[in-house]
Amino acid sequence: MEGYLYRLDFKVRDYECDLQGIVNNAVYQNYLEHTRHEYLKTKGVDFAEIHREGKDAVVVRVEMDFITSLVSGDAFYVTLKVEQKGRMRLVFIQEVYRSRDDWLMLKGKVTTAVVEKGRPHPIDDLADRLRTA
Amino acid sequence: MEGYLYRLDFKVRDYECDLQGIVNNAVYQNYLEHTRHEYLKTKGVDFAEIHREGKDAVVVRVEMDFITSLVSGDAFYVTLKVEQKGRMRLVFIQEVYRSRDDWLMLKGKVTTAVVEKGRPHPIDDLADRLRTA
Amino acid sequence: MEGYLYRLDFKVRDYECDLQGIVNNAVYQNYLEHTRHEYLKTKGVDFAEIHREGKDAVVVRVEMDFITSLVSGDAFYVTLKVEQKGRMRLVFIQEVYRSRDDWLMLKGKVTTAVVEKGRPHPIDDLADRLRTA
Amino acid sequence: MEGYLYRLDFKVRDYECDLQGIVNNAVYQNYLEHTRHEYLKTKGVDFAEIHREGKDAVVVRVEMDFITSLVSGDAFYVTLKVEQKGRMRLVFIQEVYRSRDDWLMLKGKVTTAVVEKGRPHPIDDLADRLRTA
Repeated sequence: MEGYLYRLDFKVRDYECDLQGIVNNAVYQNYLEHTRHEYLKTKGVDFAEIHREGKDAVVVRVEMDFITSLVSGDAFYVTLKVEQKGRMRLVFIQEVYRSRDDWLMLKGKVTTAVVEKGRPHPIDDLADRLRTA
Repeated sequence: MEGYLYRLDFKVRDYECDLQGIVNNAVYQNYLEHTRHEYLKTKGVDFAEIHREGKDAVVVRVEMDFITSLVSGDAFYVTLKVEQKGRMRLVFIQEVYRSRDDWLMLKGKVTTAVVEKGRPHPIDDLADRLRTA
Repeated sequence: MEGYLYRLDFKVRDYECDLQGIVNNAVYQNYLEHTRHEYLKTKGVDFAEIHREGKDAVVVRVEMDFITSLVSGDAFYVTLKVEQKGRMRLVFIQEVYRSRDDWLMLKGKVTTAVVEKGRPHPIDDLADRLRTA
Repeated sequence: MEGYLYRLDFKVRDYECDLQGIVNNAVYQNYLEHTRHEYLKTKGVDFAEIHREGKDAVVVRVEMDFITSLVSGDAFYVTLKVEQKGRMRLVFIQEVYRSRDDWLMLKGKVTTAVVEKGRPHPIDDLADRLRTA
């Protein structure tokens, strides 16, 4: 992924692998989420804190293409880019790469919104802060 | 979802909820997977068994639209339809409904393939078995 | 387990199994917790609700003896007894049995407390409600 | 914990927190397991590899005392000591500390065995390798 804004390094944990000996599909969503939340923190946006303030960042759509499976012992990293879609949607383009050979394992696209008291909230300000490194 | 082939009933478990008090996004993938595997069993296809035989059913693409969040205490059910896509792809159309009002919570589309010794395997026979109730 | 107060039925979900093909150890804690919370609900105590009221039921100690491993496909049930320990501790004696032969898979002992604004709260009333079927 | 053999650093991931806003109890078992497996690797013992060779390291007993809860944003580390118990048992003494103040969050004791074709296997050699830093 060229020109990503943020990268977070991980290591597969054995309990994340399923009986096929590969990381379970659902776990990749955890990896993507953790990367987004860590990125938000570098921008001064704390997921747990905004929840306590009555706003919630919610995922409205997830798309993931599984290319190669991570296995026990693999080190990997997740990258992230941000795009705004209209006034209400923030889209995270995320990819997972195996560290030893920079091999692309997964391509993800996560569309999010901010909700306050059940109603969508414009995300222009947030988008401006998040789209720059 | 009209004309679904299979339906599985669930109840939210509190450990599946995150600090927003709603079921964490990644957990829905677990729900969808468990429903697929239970459906496969009704057709005599056992996920763990085919793994031991050297074949693996793998997910190649996931799409999920999150409509309403499940919360602690919710009972819900997951439905499933199957479509064949070419000779190599089996697509599961899955939806999650809240039981008390049949409200649509999530729409999912999971594209899978069968791999044997790292190579894709035609799924025609499997598709024939799975597409009928 | 003789004279248990409550029993909840489960089925192993494949994503709960690890690369050894057995249910991962940590998942049993999930099973025990879900059983406790479901039991509490039958007594009119809702874990999510008491949290919103400012009280929190917390686990202070867990002991688990792993006897036989659950595997993919197993149906099982979790039982529960309640004991009071002093004025501040509620102890759940829990066991996991495989359904097809009532074989004991795991013995657990979970000691809990109620905390309000960071301070322990006497549990006499709660204990009286919970110790009877 | 004085004289520990190994230490692994972690950061809480938001998906590990439950609706109380704290790390779910079962997740600590994941932390302890990952630390043990990483330690084993430093000693040339790979959990996934020995499984493929037909041996399995299994947990027979877990004891955990929960002292203070980890919350979103916390950095922490897990320590580990090893004790042999008879010819068949390897005991891992593990503790979890919050990084910013070295505050003890959890004390754990995990008793393990090695099983080959369903039968316990003496662990003397393994114990010798693991008990020294």
